[in-house]
Amino acid sequence: MEVVQVLHMNGGVGETSYAKNSLLQQKVITMTKPITEEAITKLYCSKYPEEIAIADLGCSSGPNTFFLVSELLKVVDSVRQKIGQKSPEYQVFLNDLPGNDFNTIFRSLSIFQNKLRKQLGPGNGPCFFTGVPGSFYGRLFRKNSLHFVHSSYSLHWLSQVPQGLESNKRNIYMASTSPPDVLKAYYVQFQKDFSLFLKCRSEELVDGGRMVLTLIGRRSDDPSSKECCYFWELLAMALSDMLVEGLIEEEKLNSFNIPMYTPSPAEVKYEVVKEGSFNIDRLEVTEVNWNAYLDETDLSDAFKDGGYNVAKCMRAVAEPLLASYFGEEILDEVFRRYREIISDRLSKEKNEFVNVTVSLIKP
Amino acid sequence: MEVVQVLHMNGGVGETSYAKNSLLQQKVITMTKPITEEAITKLYCSKYPEEIAIADLGCSSGPNTFFLVSELLKVVDSVRQKIGQKSPEYQVFLNDLPGNDFNTIFRSLSIFQNKLRKQLGPGNGPCFFTGVPGSFYGRLFRKNSLHFVHSSYSLHWLSQVPQGLESNKRNIYMASTSPPDVLKAYYVQFQKDFSLFLKCRSEELVDGGRMVLTLIGRRSDDPSSKECCYFWELLAMALSDMLVEGLIEEEKLNSFNIPMYTPSPAEVKYEVVKEGSFNIDRLEVTEVNWNAYLDETDLSDAFKDGGYNVAKCMRAVAEPLLASYFGEEILDEVFRRYREIISDRLSKEKNEFVNVTVSLIKP
Repeated sequence: MEVVQVLHMNGGVGETSYAKNSLLQQKVITMTKPITEEAITKLYCSKYPEEIAIADLGCSSGPNTFFLVSELLKVVDSVRQKIGQKSPEYQVFLNDLPGNDFNTIFRSLSIFQNKLRKQLGPGNGPCFFTGVPGSFYGRLFRKNSLHFVHSSYSLHWLSQVPQGLESNKRNIYMASTSPPDVLKAYYVQFQKDFSLFLKCRSEELVDGGRMVLTLIGRRSDDPSSKECCYFWELLAMALSDMLVEGLIEEEKLNSFNIPMYTPSPAEVKYEVVKEGSFNIDRLEVTEVNWNAYLDETDLSDAFKDGGYNVAKCMRAVAEPLLASYFGEEILDEVFRRYREIISDRLSKEKNEFVNVTVSLIKP
Repeated sequence: MEVVQVLHMNGGVGETSYAKNSLLQQKVITMTKPITEEAITKLYCSKYPEEIAIADLGCSSGPNTFFLVSELLKVVDSVRQKIGQKSPEYQVFLNDLPGNDFNTIFRSLSIFQNKLRKQLGPGNGPCFFTGVPGSFYGRLFRKNSLHFVHSSYSLHWLSQVPQGLESNKRNIYMASTSPPDVLKAYYVQFQKDFSLFLKCRSEELVDGGRMVLTLIGRRSDDPSSKECCYFWELLAMALSDMLVEGLIEEEKLNSFNIPMYTPSPAEVKYEVVKEGSFNIDRLEVTEVNWNAYLDETDLSDAFKDGGYNVAKCMRAVAEPLLASYFGEEILDEVFRRYREIISDRLSKEKNEFVNVTVSLIKP
């Protein structure tokens, strides 16, 4: 459980590379913007509420914590100006695990609010921010207190490492060589977690409330498909090499597994229908390149090495998990090897994360 | 303004001595408990609401951040058990300035919640915590979203150092030697701030909502009375001595003033009536000894020196202000001298803070 806490607390983003991963996240939010925009517009136009309570689950702490919120508010403000409505008051709940750096978020709040005020039209309503520490696999808000829930790049993290992964040995996630009971254990944990998430949120959302969720997923029906598992398989290779050289204990590697599940759209749909609280408005799949941040103009040459990029991106995600399990001293060596493997294997392949986005409405 | 921010962000409590000041604060909360208890009981029994939203303004960050909340919840839970009501859901908003250490609060939350669950009876409702960064001299919450507001030992801090204190010279607060225009400038700032506070809260509280405020005040009609100003006068003496010895610049000392106001019950009442949103249910004065924390059994001998105690207590409050104005390097010397002065002057006197507590209802 502790492992998940460490990882999850930053929505999967370690402290070493917020900027890079934030850019990836910003890309994802931008890419899924049409869906989010449609959802918040429909929400607003259905009742023109005097107040809108928005929760961002797994908000993390970095330059993009406020990015989504400002996008949402700009949409509402633009619509209400067009139709001559008075601005609603906004309440924004920023949620992440208790270990998240809320202090940094709070200390940059006034700069953001001043900027936002200028971006929105005259007469825009006040926006009140609160931080909400806690796991979203449990109730976080009062009954019927939310209008809009958003979560991006957080819900693929499970609440815990699934039980019964003993036979997964040198794999650290689902892999082509994982036995069927391992795949099942992962899927069962995902079903349990995702279903609980939906149940909690349905209690917290008002009738007519909406929710847009984006998580890393896959297109394939096979949960061990390369599109979602390959980046972990390559990391497992680096760890296995170190095991062979006696740098890591066998028992440790055998018992190490990543608490993540990358569902297919069908699996997401199945859980939503089974849980029964929400109707699906949209369900879409997008891709984002692993090297998404190569667009940045100010990157040093080092960043133009694809292996370096991917290793750095994955390090940000995996480092807290690996550090708490194997100790910090192995990290540099693991990621040096990982980078080499990636450069070798992936330099000529297309490397993408598959994103599954679902837009839900509580009828 | 920056000075106020630094000080105010911890509700007046510096980082060096949370524990001691927390004990003082705990004493104050315990002392005013009959008033708070009556207010929350009346609130609950008037409507038996299904949810209660509580805001603690100036919550600080320390061992007592959760003390008040647990007291309030125990009262409600005890009442609802006696009359066989289903427990409400609780929403707790913990507010302080953005510089407050919310991370520490959030990371100790689960321990507190587990403890609370055991203290409350079976069937107690969930309690959701959020952190709210921002000045309470402005709106912090949505309209009609709060049932109960509490603030202890924070509201005597003004939003800024009053304008027009040029003639206050070597005083650092209102003093017996302060000219009338200085006393007036302080009072005007208090009126403006307190009135704005009431207005904001009246918008945020539901009809029938209640508010209990405790601030350091005075019994006397004279705002420069010894009971509220003496501890600052003695600190000013220490600073003046250092000025004579060339350790502090004259200009700096002349322009340094504490952004605080310690009102009389009559002044509090006057503002409440004038602002007009609230009815006064109770208005009381209590005292708490400066050496309140001498009850602790595990204190070293050093703590049994009254001068040491008071200097330490005041240092916690004044250090951030002094440091940002005069620089950190003078602090040890200031408080060494302050301690000597206090030991000399106060060893045979009764030294108390006067607390003004007002219990308000929004009709």
